[in-house]
Amino acid sequence: MYLERPGKIVEKKIREPSPKEGEVLVRIRSVGVCGSDIHYYQEGRIGKFVVRKPLILGHECSGEVVEVGKKVDDLKVGDRVALEPGIPCRMCEHCKSGRYNLCSKIRFMATPPIDGAFVEYVAHPADFAFKIPRKISFDEAALFEPLAVGLYAAERARIKPTDKVLILGAGPIGLTTLQAVRCMRGVEVSVIDLYEFRLAKAKELGADEVINPKEEDIWKKLSSSFDVVFETAGSAVTVKQTVKLAKEGGRVILVGLPGEDEIALDTKQIVFKELDVLGMHRYANMYPRAVKLTQEGSINLKTLITHRFSFEETEKALKFARDNKDSCIKVIVRI
Amino acid sequence: MYLERPGKIVEKKIREPSPKEGEVLVRIRSVGVCGSDIHYYQEGRIGKFVVRKPLILGHECSGEVVEVGKKVDDLKVGDRVALEPGIPCRMCEHCKSGRYNLCSKIRFMATPPIDGAFVEYVAHPADFAFKIPRKISFDEAALFEPLAVGLYAAERARIKPTDKVLILGAGPIGLTTLQAVRCMRGVEVSVIDLYEFRLAKAKELGADEVINPKEEDIWKKLSSSFDVVFETAGSAVTVKQTVKLAKEGGRVILVGLPGEDEIALDTKQIVFKELDVLGMHRYANMYPRAVKLTQEGSINLKTLITHRFSFEETEKALKFARDNKDSCIKVIVRI
Amino acid sequence: MYLERPGKIVEKKIREPSPKEGEVLVRIRSVGVCGSDIHYYQEGRIGKFVVRKPLILGHECSGEVVEVGKKVDDLKVGDRVALEPGIPCRMCEHCKSGRYNLCSKIRFMATPPIDGAFVEYVAHPADFAFKIPRKISFDEAALFEPLAVGLYAAERARIKPTDKVLILGAGPIGLTTLQAVRCMRGVEVSVIDLYEFRLAKAKELGADEVINPKEEDIWKKLSSSFDVVFETAGSAVTVKQTVKLAKEGGRVILVGLPGEDEIALDTKQIVFKELDVLGMHRYANMYPRAVKLTQEGSINLKTLITHRFSFEETEKALKFARDNKDSCIKVIVRI
Amino acid sequence: MYLERPGKIVEKKIREPSPKEGEVLVRIRSVGVCGSDIHYYQEGRIGKFVVRKPLILGHECSGEVVEVGKKVDDLKVGDRVALEPGIPCRMCEHCKSGRYNLCSKIRFMATPPIDGAFVEYVAHPADFAFKIPRKISFDEAALFEPLAVGLYAAERARIKPTDKVLILGAGPIGLTTLQAVRCMRGVEVSVIDLYEFRLAKAKELGADEVINPKEEDIWKKLSSSFDVVFETAGSAVTVKQTVKLAKEGGRVILVGLPGEDEIALDTKQIVFKELDVLGMHRYANMYPRAVKLTQEGSINLKTLITHRFSFEETEKALKFARDNKDSCIKVIVRI
Repeated sequence: MYLERPGKIVEKKIREPSPKEGEVLVRIRSVGVCGSDIHYYQEGRIGKFVVRKPLILGHECSGEVVEVGKKVDDLKVGDRVALEPGIPCRMCEHCKSGRYNLCSKIRFMATPPIDGAFVEYVAHPADFAFKIPRKISFDEAALFEPLAVGLYAAERARIKPTDKVLILGAGPIGLTTLQAVRCMRGVEVSVIDLYEFRLAKAKELGADEVINPKEEDIWKKLSSSFDVVFETAGSAVTVKQTVKLAKEGGRVILVGLPGEDEIALDTKQIVFKELDVLGMHRYANMYPRAVKLTQEGSINLKTLITHRFSFEETEKALKFARDNKDSCIKVIVRI
Repeated sequence: MYLERPGKIVEKKIREPSPKEGEVLVRIRSVGVCGSDIHYYQEGRIGKFVVRKPLILGHECSGEVVEVGKKVDDLKVGDRVALEPGIPCRMCEHCKSGRYNLCSKIRFMATPPIDGAFVEYVAHPADFAFKIPRKISFDEAALFEPLAVGLYAAERARIKPTDKVLILGAGPIGLTTLQAVRCMRGVEVSVIDLYEFRLAKAKELGADEVINPKEEDIWKKLSSSFDVVFETAGSAVTVKQTVKLAKEGGRVILVGLPGEDEIALDTKQIVFKELDVLGMHRYANMYPRAVKLTQEGSINLKTLITHRFSFEETEKALKFARDNKDSCIKVIVRI
Repeated sequence: MYLERPGKIVEKKIREPSPKEGEVLVRIRSVGVCGSDIHYYQEGRIGKFVVRKPLILGHECSGEVVEVGKKVDDLKVGDRVALEPGIPCRMCEHCKSGRYNLCSKIRFMATPPIDGAFVEYVAHPADFAFKIPRKISFDEAALFEPLAVGLYAAERARIKPTDKVLILGAGPIGLTTLQAVRCMRGVEVSVIDLYEFRLAKAKELGADEVINPKEEDIWKKLSSSFDVVFETAGSAVTVKQTVKLAKEGGRVILVGLPGEDEIALDTKQIVFKELDVLGMHRYANMYPRAVKLTQEGSINLKTLITHRFSFEETEKALKFARDNKDSCIKVIVRI
Repeated sequence: MYLERPGKIVEKKIREPSPKEGEVLVRIRSVGVCGSDIHYYQEGRIGKFVVRKPLILGHECSGEVVEVGKKVDDLKVGDRVALEPGIPCRMCEHCKSGRYNLCSKIRFMATPPIDGAFVEYVAHPADFAFKIPRKISFDEAALFEPLAVGLYAAERARIKPTDKVLILGAGPIGLTTLQAVRCMRGVEVSVIDLYEFRLAKAKELGADEVINPKEEDIWKKLSSSFDVVFETAGSAVTVKQTVKLAKEGGRVILVGLPGEDEIALDTKQIVFKELDVLGMHRYANMYPRAVKLTQEGSINLKTLITHRFSFEETEKALKFARDNKDSCIKVIVRI
């Protein structure tokens, strides 16, 4: 399924790729719809990334190995795998020092001009294809990707027991961040969102407190400040709140990407309170723990999946996810 | 010397204090004039700290021990000492975990209502009084305080060899930060300031490159981005520049306190480039290394001292420092 | 109850102490018997610490505030508290940098010549007395102390999801370490001990695998090596095993104190595998998380308490704990 | 030059290799003789690594690019380069997390069965070939390799100003470690060795104190303990000294590889003093800083080169380095 131009998805025949050395050929089975897919579908661009020729969207995906390239030892035909969608150059300073997510040559699915996963077959490096444990479905495994974002956010935050944590936004990323934070015991988590449906999910997934600013004045409700504040909503309002809600020595993790070019921030608070305000770009080395935590039941991805569509309905799926934030968390397309 | 009201310093007799258990009585000899002293002198307040009753200013100080309280083992009468001006509670979460600078009960000299160092005698906890090596003068030792700020900035930045570093502002803090950074070899440092006099000092103290934005377009001049950017100027313009000038995975250290309540910041860059934007509030545990580095000659504090005044001229010293940024770095008052 | 000489505990009248400024007077209620108490009782010394005059043993303790000294804001008469037994000087390099457990002047209960907790009243600094949440008993709260050791061990190990962990020894410290490790989800834990009773407790507390070397050959049983190995048994055999059982880049945490002056270690493995072999001396800043984790039910201290004795039976309690390692974990003395 | 069997080097014609994609062909110019080369030459093995077929020794090397493979952008024919000798798999857990030195599939020059650098031409991945700045000679550039070891040792030690450092052994690695440590100002360094020649070099390179245990009793001479102790001599005697000479909270870095299978260590000291005893296996990501620090003159590699031999004299060079520890530091073979 190609995004031909903003607002227009078309089906096209494509040749089945061959796996090169070190690669596996994967028959894609489930793909999650991400906010970035919707953004490209709507606008044809995200920041400097512009869709200049037809592009296959989708990067949260899982499937089945149908062919194995040379020098692949760990995978075989029939293995069920989740694909980590960004393939770094493996040679630059960032790749060699363990922060391959910062690689400037990374080829990331569905980021132009790299094609994504709304397609039948993808050839992918075997070391970025992770075996799915038996009891995890393809649909859930596709969500290892947004889970990796949440896990990386928690990692950046250096969560420790007794931390008081606030998560701004309870969309897919807010909810995986919540679950990632919950994997460290002894933490109290509050979640803020505008949609009751999402707050209910947050409650279900272990939030100690949920707040809807449409119902309550958060400044009255929140009695004290927080050791860690995650911004996952990507709005100017919430980005501004972060530094005000963090306590002395606290950490602010900026996960969401606001549309605004600039946001008026009380930077004095960063100085006075000696905050760590930490950005994050995707994730690195998070898939193994996504697999493990989901397998042992510490993470619940199933409850995030609210709707499913067929391959033919890909465009419908994108539109649905775009238009139903009050009733849907994650939309899955089954290829 | 008391600040009676904004713009008015008066001399008053005060009783010589007695050292309590664990304290020493210090005959103050040299006090540096800090930007915050000037600010209180001018405005009578800094943020939430308001001068409500006559206040002794000055917190960068050194002197001689003239009396020793009980249970003080390491100091004796006649010892020359530099005083670390902030005394924390030693009991809260921050104090116990090594970040005593974040202690909410800290008593910091010349921060209302705590009196400062423009005075003959000060009683001070012995463990916050550091012996001055023989070849370091009282004047230099008073500057351990702004040096501690620079050292803490470098510490926060986790400087490593090969880092490219940018320092925005070449005032006293910019210049101590420069020297602190230079204590790690293998680093390239660029410094930006509006005053040629300060840039010349930066050059003298080892800056690889100095730039005056009044003379050159910094965006043209700076060929690449930086691993570390220090903001020491405290202006909205420079705070905004930080996130633009930092490279992927870079660190931004906010040292200066801007007057603005809010600054429009391109927060998307923090996210995309996965920056660490780190505030800092004074310093902790930096005096021992200030002593050591100055003693071995790795730090030059002498060159920062451009003017000296007598105790009686305290008010004149404050005015002079306020009005001569183009020709003075540090003004010392000799008590 | 005083240890008069090795093997001899006598009751003596002592004057009720008065709380000084910053202190509270605590009526002790529960005291856990620790291996070190037994050691002093038996040998009259541990390493360089020698009992030279009658000493009150016991340092794992909780009680009730019966009097409050000046300048104590957070506690009042009637509060139930657990006492952190080591009071550091608060002024040395280690205290100021957050590692107060390394303070050379620390006054630690029941470490000669400092008296301990087998006594009715103790005056103690309020900031080292932690309020006990309502649903936690005095007996459990006394065990915050060995729990603090386990929590600190986990902290030193920088546990992360997907880590494979091995704990050598399932005594009180092994079992609190196990629970501390379990507070990070996504970890697999194996436990080795010689006593079935202890292994059963380990299993109950969440060990994935337990091994008794008397029953099985651990080198055959353990299919692979470990990211983290904790040594809590304090025997030469287990200390030697640590570096062999750790994998490349792994961490070895030495918690137990072996009696041997020297242990023949394969140090080449430390080099080749680039291990971190980390000692630890008690703990710092762990009581708040001990309280929180126990309160929320993530830690179970109740199950560690296998036997209880009255104040009069203190000596009997020491002997019982010494002689019944196959059937007892923790012995509590109720004062 | 092939090591045919222990004690026998023979010359053989070999075909000039072709650079594959991402590789450069390098005409080797200078090769340093390392202790491991001597060891293989003598014994035919180091631990589990056994020379089973003729092997080219040498891994500290530099040369000139004579051919460039496909997809190499940063290097061109004529460039002078130093080769980092270990090529990791780039795909395993360790490679992806920045510790590629722990990669179990690493191909490291002159570690059987991988051939080394006593040869005219080597094809090598371009990203492990580092451009040599103009004023650094091929001989010096060959020594980036042992310098990388010293830099990594300092990195592991987290050296900070005011640290008191002890280096056991002043051979090539001891002397590069000394220089690496010296790149952080404010540090005091003592060096211990049995050879006066080496101690003189240590003195020349900035050691504050040098001690020869044949002349002085080190336990009397060393007045206090150390924040950091580096073991580079690889002897049982010095490995045992490390934990005794480190102070509370100190770090011990084990760099040298002792011949003994086991060394009797006072492990109680690791526990009591809460030491970090850290092994290290080669290095990762150190070449860029080796280049930078040498270029700016912070590191002096020239003074380490005491003798030079021609390609034909390779075997003589190995023998000379083996037999003259009292008068030689580094022997270079010019190809």
